[in-house]
Amino acid sequence: MRLAVLGVGLIGGSIGMAARARLEAPVAGFDPDPETLRRAVEVGALDEAAGSIAEACAGAEIVFCAAPVSALEALAGDALSVAGEDCVVTDVGSTKREIVAGLGEDERFIGGHPLAGAETSGVENARADLFEGARWYLTPTTYSGGLLYDRLQRALAELGARPQAIDAESHDRVMATVSHLPHVIANVLVSQAASELRDGSERMPDAGPSLRDTTRVAGANPQIWGDIFASNRESVAAAIDETVEQLRRAAELIREGDREAVAEWHRGAGADRRTLLESELGGGPLIQLRVVVPNKPGTVAELALALGRAGVNIEDMALYPAADMRTGAISLWIAGEQQAERALGLVRELGYTASVEPG
Amino acid sequence: MRLAVLGVGLIGGSIGMAARARLEAPVAGFDPDPETLRRAVEVGALDEAAGSIAEACAGAEIVFCAAPVSALEALAGDALSVAGEDCVVTDVGSTKREIVAGLGEDERFIGGHPLAGAETSGVENARADLFEGARWYLTPTTYSGGLLYDRLQRALAELGARPQAIDAESHDRVMATVSHLPHVIANVLVSQAASELRDGSERMPDAGPSLRDTTRVAGANPQIWGDIFASNRESVAAAIDETVEQLRRAAELIREGDREAVAEWHRGAGADRRTLLESELGGGPLIQLRVVVPNKPGTVAELALALGRAGVNIEDMALYPAADMRTGAISLWIAGEQQAERALGLVRELGYTASVEPG
Repeated sequence: MRLAVLGVGLIGGSIGMAARARLEAPVAGFDPDPETLRRAVEVGALDEAAGSIAEACAGAEIVFCAAPVSALEALAGDALSVAGEDCVVTDVGSTKREIVAGLGEDERFIGGHPLAGAETSGVENARADLFEGARWYLTPTTYSGGLLYDRLQRALAELGARPQAIDAESHDRVMATVSHLPHVIANVLVSQAASELRDGSERMPDAGPSLRDTTRVAGANPQIWGDIFASNRESVAAAIDETVEQLRRAAELIREGDREAVAEWHRGAGADRRTLLESELGGGPLIQLRVVVPNKPGTVAELALALGRAGVNIEDMALYPAADMRTGAISLWIAGEQQAERALGLVRELGYTASVEPG
Repeated sequence: MRLAVLGVGLIGGSIGMAARARLEAPVAGFDPDPETLRRAVEVGALDEAAGSIAEACAGAEIVFCAAPVSALEALAGDALSVAGEDCVVTDVGSTKREIVAGLGEDERFIGGHPLAGAETSGVENARADLFEGARWYLTPTTYSGGLLYDRLQRALAELGARPQAIDAESHDRVMATVSHLPHVIANVLVSQAASELRDGSERMPDAGPSLRDTTRVAGANPQIWGDIFASNRESVAAAIDETVEQLRRAAELIREGDREAVAEWHRGAGADRRTLLESELGGGPLIQLRVVVPNKPGTVAELALALGRAGVNIEDMALYPAADMRTGAISLWIAGEQQAERALGLVRELGYTASVEPG
């Protein structure tokens, strides 16, 4: 088996490394930026730096297109025009409907989307185990060649990923809700807060931990998100419409002023969050510990170290510095009641005040 | 000076401790729960457990009412009916318009709201330094006695807090945006995601770090939030209306599909977030480091410890476990470029891949 990778950033580079290590397949690569291409060879992501798309694709059985979303359709189209008849061409873009609409009638094209690598970028961060255990969506169409699909999904499984077929439309709709919408909402909320504070006669130095958490992803990577929003605009806009509808109902509920009804709605949201996180984590119910701490260097370390030594994993963590920046709280999420109980004991042994948050 | 505290949970208990330690004022307290009252004396929050509101208020110059929001107006009303003519009665509720509308014509009542203690609850977590450096809003009216206001705000400053006058309406409006609204949005978003996943034919095991952050506060403390939403319903509903309007505009912008316009909007949100956080932290621009890590016990500790040893403070932190739960990323927010640069060096020395996120 011979592979080609077009675009050798974090994802392309990691595909190359994983393929070389696990498939023992020779990997040719091309990148429009010669310096990136040179580095990709240097870090071991490629066997061969090709001088063109055609050169990279020559003799390849699988071609991975790993460019920014806005460039993917053209890139994959170019690859299809030079790839052999028995070559499967796939991509790694975060949205799938647009590219599948454009290329899905070619039996050799199968769209893909690995859920990995969102945390960083660049070939210097590439690694062979990036896809270990990661869901890798594939969006075949009725035109897709069965043998080509089989070859692709086997190769992905050998790279360590968990390939799963999904139609492009469902993919984009679900991603709109669980990934793209939170970014839209964070943007809107942070701008609304900034505007409220600008307009107010008061400076409000304490934005509050809830605003901090809810807006953490606001404004991240404008270019990438401009592309994603543009290529998934229908699903994202539809998800926003749904949020608008839900918010209207929430406003109505709150305006009515029925404390018990509001509390009930609030409890439902808490249950929904636990369901989501638990299905994601799979390590038993997720339990939140609140620890009151001095906000100084070393505190997080001390806590995390004590838990680490005891083999208790921290699934999620959030810091809440108090107004004086000298004290604060840390929330630790631990999977499973037994582990949470151990964690609570360990934290208290260190002399901290800690409690389990009511679920 | 003699003080009374009515309701001795986290806030009431901490007021008692701080007053005893810093004002050297005798503190009498009352709580409808005898066990709580007993514990408050035991942990040193009170000099004296009173048998009734009247007994606690006898001879007091300041009375702090620290009950749940829904009980505050009745409690403060009772206090005013038994307190002396030269006694100022204040409360610590998260919303101010309702209680000020009810009691603000009594020159002895001045509403208050310390921004502290949201991270935990209960008198066992009370501490004398809870209000150190914390903003403490006061909502005097045109009826409020000047000498009484002066006495109250001096006492708060001596407790370590930073008192600031604000009209009740502005207070509730700003709080609606920066504190109450994020909870509403987290609730709506988490329920929308849960519903999408329930309806979908696909299980989506990876909710994604953005959804995780944006919904972190969903469903927290239903009873407290039922009260807050009920007593601040007009401002919260108005803030939701504004969000609905902003989301409609965002949907329109995204539907139009102009990548550059969307990226520009996204960049604006990023700038708004930095402005908000920097005004809050005041330690120089906030810089985000992304560190690729194995998701195992001890990793957070190792990182935090290295930074702690070097005196670099972590202002905020978020964990992003990857799909396989064996790798992932950690975001660290460090205030100031020099500190961030040091942190980056330290993290890399430990052998981790790390980079500064573009601002």
